[in-house]
Amino acid sequence: MTQYYAGKAHRIPFAMIGGGFGSAVGVSHRDAAQMGGVFELQAGVFSSDPKRGREFGETVGVASQRCYATVQELVQHESGRKDGVRLATIVTPNALHAPAARTLMEGGIHVMCEKPMAISRAEAVELRSIAGQRGLVFALAHAYSGYAMVHEARALVAQGAIGRVVMLQAQYASGWASLPIGKDAKRGALWRTDPAQAGPSSVLGDLGTHVHHLTRFITGLEITEVAAELTSIVPGRTVDDTAEILLRFDNGACGMMWVTMAAAGNGNELGIKVFGESGQIAWEQETPDILTIRHVDGTAELRRRAIVTNSVSATMARRRPGQPEGFVDAFANLYRNVARHLDTQSTACMDALPVIPDARDGVFGMAFIEAAVASSSNGAAWTKIQGD
Amino acid sequence: MTQYYAGKAHRIPFAMIGGGFGSAVGVSHRDAAQMGGVFELQAGVFSSDPKRGREFGETVGVASQRCYATVQELVQHESGRKDGVRLATIVTPNALHAPAARTLMEGGIHVMCEKPMAISRAEAVELRSIAGQRGLVFALAHAYSGYAMVHEARALVAQGAIGRVVMLQAQYASGWASLPIGKDAKRGALWRTDPAQAGPSSVLGDLGTHVHHLTRFITGLEITEVAAELTSIVPGRTVDDTAEILLRFDNGACGMMWVTMAAAGNGNELGIKVFGESGQIAWEQETPDILTIRHVDGTAELRRRAIVTNSVSATMARRRPGQPEGFVDAFANLYRNVARHLDTQSTACMDALPVIPDARDGVFGMAFIEAAVASSSNGAAWTKIQGD
Amino acid sequence: MTQYYAGKAHRIPFAMIGGGFGSAVGVSHRDAAQMGGVFELQAGVFSSDPKRGREFGETVGVASQRCYATVQELVQHESGRKDGVRLATIVTPNALHAPAARTLMEGGIHVMCEKPMAISRAEAVELRSIAGQRGLVFALAHAYSGYAMVHEARALVAQGAIGRVVMLQAQYASGWASLPIGKDAKRGALWRTDPAQAGPSSVLGDLGTHVHHLTRFITGLEITEVAAELTSIVPGRTVDDTAEILLRFDNGACGMMWVTMAAAGNGNELGIKVFGESGQIAWEQETPDILTIRHVDGTAELRRRAIVTNSVSATMARRRPGQPEGFVDAFANLYRNVARHLDTQSTACMDALPVIPDARDGVFGMAFIEAAVASSSNGAAWTKIQGD
Amino acid sequence: MTQYYAGKAHRIPFAMIGGGFGSAVGVSHRDAAQMGGVFELQAGVFSSDPKRGREFGETVGVASQRCYATVQELVQHESGRKDGVRLATIVTPNALHAPAARTLMEGGIHVMCEKPMAISRAEAVELRSIAGQRGLVFALAHAYSGYAMVHEARALVAQGAIGRVVMLQAQYASGWASLPIGKDAKRGALWRTDPAQAGPSSVLGDLGTHVHHLTRFITGLEITEVAAELTSIVPGRTVDDTAEILLRFDNGACGMMWVTMAAAGNGNELGIKVFGESGQIAWEQETPDILTIRHVDGTAELRRRAIVTNSVSATMARRRPGQPEGFVDAFANLYRNVARHLDTQSTACMDALPVIPDARDGVFGMAFIEAAVASSSNGAAWTKIQGD
Repeated sequence: MTQYYAGKAHRIPFAMIGGGFGSAVGVSHRDAAQMGGVFELQAGVFSSDPKRGREFGETVGVASQRCYATVQELVQHESGRKDGVRLATIVTPNALHAPAARTLMEGGIHVMCEKPMAISRAEAVELRSIAGQRGLVFALAHAYSGYAMVHEARALVAQGAIGRVVMLQAQYASGWASLPIGKDAKRGALWRTDPAQAGPSSVLGDLGTHVHHLTRFITGLEITEVAAELTSIVPGRTVDDTAEILLRFDNGACGMMWVTMAAAGNGNELGIKVFGESGQIAWEQETPDILTIRHVDGTAELRRRAIVTNSVSATMARRRPGQPEGFVDAFANLYRNVARHLDTQSTACMDALPVIPDARDGVFGMAFIEAAVASSSNGAAWTKIQGD
Repeated sequence: MTQYYAGKAHRIPFAMIGGGFGSAVGVSHRDAAQMGGVFELQAGVFSSDPKRGREFGETVGVASQRCYATVQELVQHESGRKDGVRLATIVTPNALHAPAARTLMEGGIHVMCEKPMAISRAEAVELRSIAGQRGLVFALAHAYSGYAMVHEARALVAQGAIGRVVMLQAQYASGWASLPIGKDAKRGALWRTDPAQAGPSSVLGDLGTHVHHLTRFITGLEITEVAAELTSIVPGRTVDDTAEILLRFDNGACGMMWVTMAAAGNGNELGIKVFGESGQIAWEQETPDILTIRHVDGTAELRRRAIVTNSVSATMARRRPGQPEGFVDAFANLYRNVARHLDTQSTACMDALPVIPDARDGVFGMAFIEAAVASSSNGAAWTKIQGD
Repeated sequence: MTQYYAGKAHRIPFAMIGGGFGSAVGVSHRDAAQMGGVFELQAGVFSSDPKRGREFGETVGVASQRCYATVQELVQHESGRKDGVRLATIVTPNALHAPAARTLMEGGIHVMCEKPMAISRAEAVELRSIAGQRGLVFALAHAYSGYAMVHEARALVAQGAIGRVVMLQAQYASGWASLPIGKDAKRGALWRTDPAQAGPSSVLGDLGTHVHHLTRFITGLEITEVAAELTSIVPGRTVDDTAEILLRFDNGACGMMWVTMAAAGNGNELGIKVFGESGQIAWEQETPDILTIRHVDGTAELRRRAIVTNSVSATMARRRPGQPEGFVDAFANLYRNVARHLDTQSTACMDALPVIPDARDGVFGMAFIEAAVASSSNGAAWTKIQGD
Repeated sequence: MTQYYAGKAHRIPFAMIGGGFGSAVGVSHRDAAQMGGVFELQAGVFSSDPKRGREFGETVGVASQRCYATVQELVQHESGRKDGVRLATIVTPNALHAPAARTLMEGGIHVMCEKPMAISRAEAVELRSIAGQRGLVFALAHAYSGYAMVHEARALVAQGAIGRVVMLQAQYASGWASLPIGKDAKRGALWRTDPAQAGPSSVLGDLGTHVHHLTRFITGLEITEVAAELTSIVPGRTVDDTAEILLRFDNGACGMMWVTMAAAGNGNELGIKVFGESGQIAWEQETPDILTIRHVDGTAELRRRAIVTNSVSATMARRRPGQPEGFVDAFANLYRNVARHLDTQSTACMDALPVIPDARDGVFGMAFIEAAVASSSNGAAWTKIQGD
């Protein structure tokens, strides 16, 4: 029941925009998309340098003639092929997300886009509109939303396991940029610390959108107001590397969010604690297979991935009974769910399409960033989020 | 070397104001003060009902004639005895701290006062002034500052083990008041949810002052500005039960503080993470014997209480080599350090008097509360802390 | 309800045999016995050197004339006093336990004895017999049996929370003697590595008896057979420092026990996992306030000390609601329970006398050591334990 | 540097023997082999029922004509194809491992075999001999040996980070078979509890060989003698489900191993603690990204996967910088290393071929099982392991 066989109809051809030599996230996208034979990489624009892009394409088994120089070229050729790619994954600097996505969707190609969706809410609204008009899937790469226990947390909150949500603590505290980034740093480090390429808030675009989505995904609530301090703790940095934000939710709940790329000594501590009237749920990406639930009477539970009492969606997300799952398993679930959106045949036998992070989520994410930036500029004053 | 023998000169007589039947914190004060024979309970005002106070006094071995009806009476009689108490511990509702402390100090009796020091900064300033003028010890019962690994954290920061402090996360997230407090609740619960007895912020007075002191104790920094949201998440509650606060420090560091008594399912999660330019230090009261240090290169250390490389102050604070220590051990260290302030004879053989939480800390604590209350009333606007 | 007021009738006078200068365990005995005013140290034989013993006695407030040179002298003088000590705590090298206990009990003094009870099962049987004939309390200092969550584990097993016990893993893995012990080592290290003073198995006497008792205390089962390897992993050591033992229980369950003083890098990792047909319970002294219960369906619970659903005996053992407890709190519970055995008046208002580690436990402990030594000498052959 | 691009030369065609409908381990083999495009599933004998085997083959994209009825048929056809499979993965009941492997190797096909290698040491010796004579790779599916931190542990021991190894604790404590297995259970559960299909020791074949290999892999030592108790704790079971074993190593070290499939409430707790003269290293599969190192002076370190100070082999094994890795990542490393053994071209640019679990390891594993069975039958007497 929990298994999903790809079948002949699958091995959906897909392309990548970016993700070439030296891109770690590119590797994970490929591994995730191709796990279980759901997608197969067939084309790409792997570099802004066409020669280098072709070289890379060969290392990952893409035919030379399907390694393109530009997104336009890819769209032109692939949309003319009977076996052309149906999905393209965008793994470029933030400022290029929207232009690439626009071009792809106008060519009828579904999109899996790295976060943040764009560099402004206005761009995001436009992309959402294009996707809607053309009936295309626009997915955001919020990979952790593929973890079984994140699904379980969402299901538990929805079932009222902790009562009405009243308070929340969430953070994405990474240490990757704790030291100054030199000019000879990796490309990913360079553009993330370049305001022109990173967007209005580097740290919120890169990490904050993840925890913003996780918060909404698990609680089912929207954040309506923020009081924020965006700052940089590494001397000489011209983008923000740290955001400290007070939250107000649409149901009256309160909360705090901490986002940083400069927590010296940290890995990628993404985590959330949701407090309800009768208990709490906590999840941390470092131990993704475990969910801690505490009840108001002091009793506590550990829910693990591989137990029979889990929700259907958590059970569907489980890939390795009894062995540890990791980021790539979660990410593969996200791609598999996207495939089900693309593939009506397989969908037929399912009760319903799985929820995926989409363009509406992206619009909320960009609105969140813009409100946080405004609040920080205005002495941490409470600032409303425009929403969708 | 690490042991401290009380000796004949010790068993310093002390009294308690409050802490009678049903008081859990009273038990810990007595156990801590008397551990190792440092202090001995000889007098007290154990209840506002003199008869009940005497009854309680007998259960803890206090002579009937030294169980007094009022603080005034206690001062009058004890200051006339050759063997009268030298210290009195105040364990009453917050609003009574300052009046009791004033009366005691005017009678020449040293004070160990539960937090918050008072219900206003002005009161705290006055008490500090009295203590200064009379050369009396005024100690605040920030018990966790007696934990060995809190001392180790302080020593490590001072030694530069994590470089300049740049960011901080601290919380005291208790779940004790997650449900509405009924009229038949315990006395401690009733006065903590009564604005008249709890002071301007119940949650900051009761728990926030602890984490405020811990922050300053470990980092050696002062918090200069706050942007705060004080709120109540339990319906019908007339005091705040939750505070979410953004922090600015005097060295430019940023931070967040979360304080609540309504985190359903929590015990008493007091904890702190201090980030420096080259690493971080984390401590949590739930596992008090462990300190986690992470370095910017990704390596990490666990420091335990019982290791030879610890600082002198951490080593001095160690009581049980090889076995778990708890709250009472930490608290006993605090009392022992107070004894050393009272006892010049024993001090003679020490390099220096140990640092204890004192009246100046209390003034800062009250100023912090007042600034947080003001910020919250003013839309989370950044608000300066008056300091001492 | 959970509080136990010592009252006037308490402050039971007690003595110590050993536990003078440099003795860490002596400090814990004094702190534990005197916590809450249950016992009061009034006499002792603190050293084999009478002058040094007197000097030490003064540092802990014992009158000079009640610091004795020998156990005989103590018995003689104290039994003649109306206010003479009623209990004596034995904290000497193992080989002296039985002679001291015999003398004390023959003088009508109750005994709290450090483990192992003796250096042979025969000695232990004799002491049990004396205690029985004279109606005296003979308590063994298995301090961890005072932890609230050890009581909770015992209660859960008894209630059938994990079904019939089928398998067990227990260990006491200390690292204190990982390096060779030089001639200038502390006294405690010297006698523990001297076969003449330590008894037939140093590691089982010092640590193995603890885990042996813990196993029996929690499960209510007896170990009936062992297959053992006793060895020394530190070169040149003339006592065993490590024991690896397979276990068979009287109900057919199987198990393993690991005991060592030479686990380089360890503190004092005492822990147990008990597996039943329907689940398991795990406790570790390093995190004494937590009990982990896992069920056969994969669900799991964390039980903490301070929750309302705990058993009566766990609740009775709780001293610090909401704050971490440590070794001294557990140890104080043991002394308090001994006091209740001594004190019929206070017992009157209790449902029943609490269980304490006693002479029968000590006989089983010595029989266990003797069987393990025999098995190890006989090629790990399964060897029956004589029992009581 | 840490990345390994598959390139055109890869996508090595491979087959599976077993691993069809309902096989969880089959899914992981396919995901692991195909990650990064290293292998590609092209043929198989997916079921003993040829029709069902073909049906399954289609769901995973294998051409109908390459879904065979028997291993013989597969060898016959595939060895005749220019693009025939070069490797076959054996995922059948234990008793079929050796016959399948023999047939495959005699047809010139390399083998990846699930553990245990065979059902007797004699069979294993024969397979090793065939592999040697024909110059074929015979790999054992000890997947956890692909975890980065297992490689790091091995490197640290080899570097002397904990000194000479003196003591070891290892376990594989699974709870999957804690309840009686009914006749309608899954196929994997049925054959694992059928002595005819499982071999001389079900629990040691299925789980014990894993921890046996892990022990040898990390320490570089051989186990030379065992004293064992093999038993069944679930009533009515006709295979052993639990093994408790004392160990002696070739360097004089001692140790204990605990293996069970009936630890009610457990997942798959595979773990090891290695003690040296100057410290210890601990790894647990439940938190595979972390290694704990404790030193004899009490200091401790946490090594994480993503740090620069790790060994080359640990760094090579890292796939997701900053995000959690899981079982499939480790398993994919194992397949990638096998590919390097098959592929001299890619090997050319490497310093040396990576170590993989091979036929010699399998022979040791079977000898270990046979010695444990003999010891258990002989009252836990110390029994020598025949070795290779």
